[in-house]
Amino acid sequence: MNTPRVLIIGAGFGGLYAAREFRDTLTSVTVIDRSNHHTFQPLLYQVATATLAPSDIAAPIRWLLRKQRNTEVLMASVERVDPERRVAVLDDGTELPYDYLILAAGARHSYFGHPEWEAVAPGLKSIDDALEIRRRFLTAFEEAERATNEADRTANLTFVIIGGGPTGVELAGMLPTIARHTLRGDFRRIDTATARIILLEGGPRLLPTFPEDLAEHAERDLRELGVEVRTKTLVTSVEPDAVCIGDERIVARTVLWAAGNAASPLGRLLGPKVPVDRGGRVLVNADLSVPDHPEIFVVGDLAVMTTNGKSVPGVAQGAIQSGRAAARNVLRTIRGEGRPDFRYRNKGDMATIGRYKAIGDFGHGVHVAGYPAWWFWLFLHILYLAGFRNRLSVLVEWGYAFFTYGLGARLITRQQR
Amino acid sequence: MNTPRVLIIGAGFGGLYAAREFRDTLTSVTVIDRSNHHTFQPLLYQVATATLAPSDIAAPIRWLLRKQRNTEVLMASVERVDPERRVAVLDDGTELPYDYLILAAGARHSYFGHPEWEAVAPGLKSIDDALEIRRRFLTAFEEAERATNEADRTANLTFVIIGGGPTGVELAGMLPTIARHTLRGDFRRIDTATARIILLEGGPRLLPTFPEDLAEHAERDLRELGVEVRTKTLVTSVEPDAVCIGDERIVARTVLWAAGNAASPLGRLLGPKVPVDRGGRVLVNADLSVPDHPEIFVVGDLAVMTTNGKSVPGVAQGAIQSGRAAARNVLRTIRGEGRPDFRYRNKGDMATIGRYKAIGDFGHGVHVAGYPAWWFWLFLHILYLAGFRNRLSVLVEWGYAFFTYGLGARLITRQQR
Repeated sequence: MNTPRVLIIGAGFGGLYAAREFRDTLTSVTVIDRSNHHTFQPLLYQVATATLAPSDIAAPIRWLLRKQRNTEVLMASVERVDPERRVAVLDDGTELPYDYLILAAGARHSYFGHPEWEAVAPGLKSIDDALEIRRRFLTAFEEAERATNEADRTANLTFVIIGGGPTGVELAGMLPTIARHTLRGDFRRIDTATARIILLEGGPRLLPTFPEDLAEHAERDLRELGVEVRTKTLVTSVEPDAVCIGDERIVARTVLWAAGNAASPLGRLLGPKVPVDRGGRVLVNADLSVPDHPEIFVVGDLAVMTTNGKSVPGVAQGAIQSGRAAARNVLRTIRGEGRPDFRYRNKGDMATIGRYKAIGDFGHGVHVAGYPAWWFWLFLHILYLAGFRNRLSVLVEWGYAFFTYGLGARLITRQQR
Repeated sequence: MNTPRVLIIGAGFGGLYAAREFRDTLTSVTVIDRSNHHTFQPLLYQVATATLAPSDIAAPIRWLLRKQRNTEVLMASVERVDPERRVAVLDDGTELPYDYLILAAGARHSYFGHPEWEAVAPGLKSIDDALEIRRRFLTAFEEAERATNEADRTANLTFVIIGGGPTGVELAGMLPTIARHTLRGDFRRIDTATARIILLEGGPRLLPTFPEDLAEHAERDLRELGVEVRTKTLVTSVEPDAVCIGDERIVARTVLWAAGNAASPLGRLLGPKVPVDRGGRVLVNADLSVPDHPEIFVVGDLAVMTTNGKSVPGVAQGAIQSGRAAARNVLRTIRGEGRPDFRYRNKGDMATIGRYKAIGDFGHGVHVAGYPAWWFWLFLHILYLAGFRNRLSVLVEWGYAFFTYGLGARLITRQQR
């Protein structure tokens, strides 16, 4: 019998944890990702706000999987999957055959039919995104210092974040302290403390995936920090230098997008029999496979998954657990065993609001908020960064940031020639 | 009397150390740089080779000068200086008047009349350059792993470094260990140890600014590491995917440029009375000012300076010492005192060759090489990184790299949209 070939597309949480399940098994595994590194996405906002360096939260995929001798890693873009011929087609035309496919290609930003907004309001999914946001927000203060008139100065000191989910809340929560403490003594012509940070959310409240009491807590914390929180506020247009809400025009040089996700196009390309939702996410079977193709699994942000009728949230744990479950179902199938349904275990969900504050929802009505939650968040994230060798480095950076209000990676880079 | 306005253009070693001399003086100082950060250039090759993170060796200029209340920092490009009207003109047309000007704008690469080579063979002067070189050399191994034919694989595993000065030698010295140790276990289809590293130098020997015995030592060390060193080898053309030496064609996907410097164009723009050499460097007076303009000083890589008839080398110490000397001459002039001639004190010059090996020339015939020199280099650089808060972080990275052969920042980024 030939060794079964397993192809994993995407090395985010879903793909990486799926790959790890194949360690020491009689399989031949190929992991493909466009990027050479796995990113610890929950801390991406800290790279975007110059607190952590990219290498603190990202590590080469092939290095993370180096001890799995049955696993190879390719840096490549997948153009499409051909379920009938069981091959994935790469950008250079190379075809990779598989016996089992785990599709973990995740999501990018969605601009609700306005792709032209992307150039003005970048989103935050990758290290490159984070570097670009970092460049923009640091440059805004530099431009404000250079400004020769008040209007230009104000535009540069106005920061709009669109979207009140965890990413928006976490980004917005970092900026006030940076403006009011970190940067203040470094500028001569401007008072960085006058910076306006505006968080816009279309729905009735922030953090819709969190319980209402915690969301209220977070909103209160943000307001105390000085963030202008506006809910039920639909952005009608994003222009260079301004965000419009109906007739109102907020002039701002820095606009960040944390509002919408669109699943990877690979989901829609699986064929007419594989149903997708409006956002392009694949409606998977209970065992995470897709209709008519028991050899194809979809996990993480690219999949619509349910447990006990409740949909699985688009968080790291959802991706990790579904990635593992899909891999185990592959291994069971190889051994001729049956496939159990995927059951998501809610380990809780957290978000930080600046220094000192956080909220956490651990199910069964266990809600935590404020200072103790923040310490718990810190502990959890240091724990989860294991596997990365960067843990010590992150501790050094956080210790530094905490005690000095300093930023460890305040660099404006643009790299590409 | 009005407070004298001092303008410093460039915040490399020359500009930064000049600025620091004005601390607690009755002057009004403006420091202008295109970038928001000062870069510790001697360690740039370690960012290019993924050993250190950019934030380990770079820090915001305004943060480094935050305690000098008489000093402001602007991130801007200077288009030209008008010595008659005593103003510097920024890219947006803003004019900055000065009473004293210290020009420390440094150098970029020179491609000897072939600007088209730059896209193929990037040089190493800035953090962005280092990130681009890092992207290319890491991508080459990724592409080799994906290669579907032997020619493509070989092209990706051939690295050519043009220029045998310190930058070329230091870059070339890092690659063999990375190829033979760090990366080897992470790839499945290629043997990274087969990578060819070729160092080309047009002159008769490597490291022309070092004494001959040390240069020979370095060449021997490089050959032992497996670097193909070729001196008296003039590159006749650089093409995408190949370097030509007369009729010989070396097929290589990664070509790095460490061969030539061209001074900032600002030197030539000082007017017809200010003499420049072929490379655009300004021939300064003994007190570092320029002819006819005692209020303009040029320091660092942009200046041709001599001490006792010997030219001052283009190293960090040359820039630091001339920057300080120019600042002191400004202060003496303000106080109505005379200006002593600039005298360069040779504190020695070092270069590393991979792990464990280095050479050092400390004048008066004091030459060191090999293992002890490497330890001394390490000690010196940790010492000089003071002022940066990154010292601890660099120690952690180096400790990690040394004991595990690992790389701390093995990320492929491209950032700019």
